[in-house]
Amino acid sequence: MKDKPYVIGLDLGGTNSVFGIVDKEAKIVSTVSVPTAGHGTADNYVKNCTAALMPLIEEVGGITKIKAMGIGAPNANYYSGCIEDAPNLEWRGNIPLVKMFQESLGIPVVMTNDANAAAIGEMTYGAARGMKNFIEITLGTGVGSGIVVNGQLIYGSDGFAGELGHVIVEKNGRDCGCGRKGCLECYCSGTGIARSALEKLANSRKPSVLREKLNSKLEAKDVHLSAQDGDELALEILADTGRRLGEACANFAAFCSPEAFIFFGGPTRAGELLMSHIRNAYDENVLFVYKGKAKILLSELDGASAAVLGASALGWEI
Amino acid sequence: MKDKPYVIGLDLGGTNSVFGIVDKEAKIVSTVSVPTAGHGTADNYVKNCTAALMPLIEEVGGITKIKAMGIGAPNANYYSGCIEDAPNLEWRGNIPLVKMFQESLGIPVVMTNDANAAAIGEMTYGAARGMKNFIEITLGTGVGSGIVVNGQLIYGSDGFAGELGHVIVEKNGRDCGCGRKGCLECYCSGTGIARSALEKLANSRKPSVLREKLNSKLEAKDVHLSAQDGDELALEILADTGRRLGEACANFAAFCSPEAFIFFGGPTRAGELLMSHIRNAYDENVLFVYKGKAKILLSELDGASAAVLGASALGWEI
Repeated sequence: MKDKPYVIGLDLGGTNSVFGIVDKEAKIVSTVSVPTAGHGTADNYVKNCTAALMPLIEEVGGITKIKAMGIGAPNANYYSGCIEDAPNLEWRGNIPLVKMFQESLGIPVVMTNDANAAAIGEMTYGAARGMKNFIEITLGTGVGSGIVVNGQLIYGSDGFAGELGHVIVEKNGRDCGCGRKGCLECYCSGTGIARSALEKLANSRKPSVLREKLNSKLEAKDVHLSAQDGDELALEILADTGRRLGEACANFAAFCSPEAFIFFGGPTRAGELLMSHIRNAYDENVLFVYKGKAKILLSELDGASAAVLGASALGWEI
Repeated sequence: MKDKPYVIGLDLGGTNSVFGIVDKEAKIVSTVSVPTAGHGTADNYVKNCTAALMPLIEEVGGITKIKAMGIGAPNANYYSGCIEDAPNLEWRGNIPLVKMFQESLGIPVVMTNDANAAAIGEMTYGAARGMKNFIEITLGTGVGSGIVVNGQLIYGSDGFAGELGHVIVEKNGRDCGCGRKGCLECYCSGTGIARSALEKLANSRKPSVLREKLNSKLEAKDVHLSAQDGDELALEILADTGRRLGEACANFAAFCSPEAFIFFGGPTRAGELLMSHIRNAYDENVLFVYKGKAKILLSELDGASAAVLGASALGWEI
């Protein structure tokens, strides 16, 4: 470890691939961003990324100073090291990205999905330091989750465990992108919150500044910004979202009785306007043996760098 | 191991405490049953059980031949080694049964709840041999569960993880013994199936042999026995029960993506009349990434000896 004081984190998103060289104190010593699309093949992508990374690697004393690389990516399979049929990336089929970066950089590489990377990041650098049992819930375009039990992330039999955003919470509820109905993420992701705003505006006759947003693109952040200004309808939408999350977490507790549920992502910027409702609904709905045990916490990962830090944390796990 | 070829299993039930001396091939070489109640104090219970066990221990060559003892008991906490406020036992408060048997017998003792013991038994001797990720679901008076991830049983932060019978599957549904409404076990335990029979008889005008049972105590086994004779209403009840279990398991898959769900207990004697509906509802409801992966299996633990075997299997884990 003393000889290899750095890891590389890669946050591979639909638009950009952000690389960071990270030390054990969670300091990102340098960073570089490469567009994810436009390289033609995945081989070219890896070649161009490696070229962009080389100056950063030389700066810290060369590749021998780097322990490993961690990648957080959509549809990433921890076991196979492949990105499997990612609808938002330009590569089709299974891309063995772990093997490709290993060969290109000559260091160990490990990859998992974004939410799992956030959970590992939280355990290494954030609100879950010292915890052995917790659930990270990421609220973004979708709802993701990373579940840690006995200090280990749950990957399951196939590498795809921990899709709590796709637990069905409303029978015959809203259409979900997964092709089914009523998944948690249809209600509690950023997109879900925007859908709730539309529904609320349709059903209610209350005045709300959100009505003025109907001509433009109504987003989740409009809801929490309006709520912070005291908009009653926006406050109701956050209360409904929190209630659903709290009810869902009460069911999740029956699985692994975690020490904490840690919430990460844009919609958590609503702060207590959301979190208080999660806590109340959790307390009201959880089985008596779990009552008063799990904490409901905000992530302590800095939003801007969390994805890179989370991915890099995988590198220390090798 | 060669020197200590046996473990003791204790199935501690509300009525009887059944002890078995078990070898590595899952053969129960001898067994003795002691009434659980009527000993006054827990101290006397342990003393009387030890006296009853001694002849069996001598028979296999003395206590030095015994590696450990495993206990499956209601409200047992794996971490603390205590039975905590068990409503169906005569002892109040926290009973440190592990410590008491350790001192009385002079061998390591480990304890968990009945469903967890069944899961360990299934992994050691039954349908889950060789599996690292599976969920055991026990259908009896209640619905219990034991969840195995990475080859380890999930105990959670407090020793009480894995209460999938208390996942709420129907908002504002049937009253549950836990004080909440709509838990899985209100519908799919033996008791839940009997409740479904009452509801079905109330709502339907179809003839059914179950109507003749309304004067006596209508039980879950009446449902599957009538179903096996072709009773249409009984078949519908099993279909409803299987559908609920399959839908619930589809949600459970999003947690830990298990290789298998293994069903244990009285109501599973309905066989394919129940299991086929679990499979169909699971396939219809599970997220696409998990489709076609998990097996839906019957326990391979012999019903009569499963509880003792399950408890004994804990002894090999030490």
